[in-house]
Amino acid sequence: MAVTSNEKAAAGADRFLRACRQQPVDRTPVWFMRQSGRYLPEYRALREGRDVLELCRTPELATEATLLPLRRMDVDAAILFSDIMVPVAAMGVDLEIRDGIGPVVADPIRSTADLDRLHWLDPETDTPFVMETIRLLRKELAVPLIGFAGAPFTIASYLVEGGPSRHYVRTKALMHGEPVAWDHLMTRLGDAVLAYLRAQVAAGAQAVQVFDSWVGALDPDDYVRFVLPTMRRIFDGLVDTGTLRIHFGVGTGELLPLMREAGPDMVGVDWRVPLHEAWERVGFDVGVQGNLDPAVCLAPWEAVETKALAVLRRAAGRNGHVFNLGHGVLPETPVATLQRLVELVHERTER
Amino acid sequence: MAVTSNEKAAAGADRFLRACRQQPVDRTPVWFMRQSGRYLPEYRALREGRDVLELCRTPELATEATLLPLRRMDVDAAILFSDIMVPVAAMGVDLEIRDGIGPVVADPIRSTADLDRLHWLDPETDTPFVMETIRLLRKELAVPLIGFAGAPFTIASYLVEGGPSRHYVRTKALMHGEPVAWDHLMTRLGDAVLAYLRAQVAAGAQAVQVFDSWVGALDPDDYVRFVLPTMRRIFDGLVDTGTLRIHFGVGTGELLPLMREAGPDMVGVDWRVPLHEAWERVGFDVGVQGNLDPAVCLAPWEAVETKALAVLRRAAGRNGHVFNLGHGVLPETPVATLQRLVELVHERTER
Repeated sequence: MAVTSNEKAAAGADRFLRACRQQPVDRTPVWFMRQSGRYLPEYRALREGRDVLELCRTPELATEATLLPLRRMDVDAAILFSDIMVPVAAMGVDLEIRDGIGPVVADPIRSTADLDRLHWLDPETDTPFVMETIRLLRKELAVPLIGFAGAPFTIASYLVEGGPSRHYVRTKALMHGEPVAWDHLMTRLGDAVLAYLRAQVAAGAQAVQVFDSWVGALDPDDYVRFVLPTMRRIFDGLVDTGTLRIHFGVGTGELLPLMREAGPDMVGVDWRVPLHEAWERVGFDVGVQGNLDPAVCLAPWEAVETKALAVLRRAAGRNGHVFNLGHGVLPETPVATLQRLVELVHERTER
Repeated sequence: MAVTSNEKAAAGADRFLRACRQQPVDRTPVWFMRQSGRYLPEYRALREGRDVLELCRTPELATEATLLPLRRMDVDAAILFSDIMVPVAAMGVDLEIRDGIGPVVADPIRSTADLDRLHWLDPETDTPFVMETIRLLRKELAVPLIGFAGAPFTIASYLVEGGPSRHYVRTKALMHGEPVAWDHLMTRLGDAVLAYLRAQVAAGAQAVQVFDSWVGALDPDDYVRFVLPTMRRIFDGLVDTGTLRIHFGVGTGELLPLMREAGPDMVGVDWRVPLHEAWERVGFDVGVQGNLDPAVCLAPWEAVETKALAVLRRAAGRNGHVFNLGHGVLPETPVATLQRLVELVHERTER
């Protein structure tokens, strides 16, 4: 039976959510982590003279930032423009997001006593601008909206180190040296992340991604002991909302089976693990998202195409793949490369 | 038959080399990457007012730096004090090693034309101080001496990026965008590394470690295409010397089978992969070295002990394990922790 163009459009709008549920799709959906970012001249213009947190806290601007990439290319999902440090900033942590550096925390958290500075998060009161942005976006969007949060470990690493880190020395020292303080910190952040994501879903986010970007610094033993219980609590705590839950981290090849154990519907994979191997590790009964090396997008198109097709080949024959990069879009990425990538993925995966 | 104490001492001196050959040992040998480093106050004193390259280029000082950790603890091998950028500096690259940053290259290499600035390396003429250091050390040492070199990819990443990098964007762009220039660069560096290691062995190094520290940034496809052939040529080119060859990188979980294919006698493993899994990936017919998380060494002793015993447990029952950290000793590491670690490994593995 012929599919009408309206049905096609509906299938298209639904493509991303269907893939998250491992249902058949008309084409493989695609979006990009940091698709609203510095690689877009219109994003740089929007940021001109403004701080990232100011953008995050102004619903009209955050809405505009979220929509920018959708005017450029036919991505199958929008992701809320925000920053993983927004909820902790709203919990009383004095921090700033410095360009080219990342989050810098004025007074790092390194003991149980320091935890008193992190008050309980009431998302509608403390981060009303996020919920308002989601409500505005849902009125504008033809594709699903992904909400998101940083995972407790990754947020904790900034709070404990005071900023971005290479070796996570203080974070690991707290974990191993003061496990009770660590557990308190993870509980506090886990409560906040869960409440924050539930509020995003209530406001209209149709899926959520939890970014545990730096958890790949841990070995599996430490992940099981110090991170997994909190992650499981977060994903379990979202079940009744019916939202689709994506779990992502970088350099997590060894942690993939454990990240799946945490309970998401889909696991995001960086570029280091060939996608079919990653899928085997997480289990074929959850979806996978990824995993083109973002640095490859700076190479000539032929190289990008070859590597992207290898990703598609590795995902072929199963339901539940969302095409993405293996990490965020790099600022030096040509817009045209991402535009061609979206077309390539859609063309080559037409069922 | 009782073993005399002389035989015991001989077995001890030989412990590291025997483990590299997967022969039975009286105790698991142990040494630490960067065992001559800033964590030692006497090293900081030696560095006072001196540049790393000056130390590397002065045989008496490099010898002294190499010996420092052996006066503190009973490690089973010494590793030549040097820097992976020493041979390329001797090939005509203008660079400096900045404290707290790493190698900074004045004029990065980004095309075939730039390669002309890298002249052929004659180790005895261009880096005579390295060979002299090795000869001096062999007179002093009761334990085996490990020579070393950076691997071509890791050296290339500094030459192309101009310094340490987070995303290796320019390196990957050269690789994918100008594969012929990349191959020339790898050939040139491969020739140099092989000549340099052969000269070290001729001067007296009993084993060599090739540090491909940053190669874990590549996916397996790129490793096979852009790195493996050169690595295989280096390891093959050392066979006739009879030296023991160790291959190490960070974040290489997915690359371990390929690093083994390159042909070393032993593969060094970072802390992310549980050691028994790493050993299965490289194959039980080569040795493994590692893999305690260096950040754990900053935690209280009980935590260090627990994690170290887990490493030993995962290696138990097979020949061919050298205990080490999963990466270099961090500057904040207490000397006493490493001393206790050496004792712990020796005590708990006595056969």
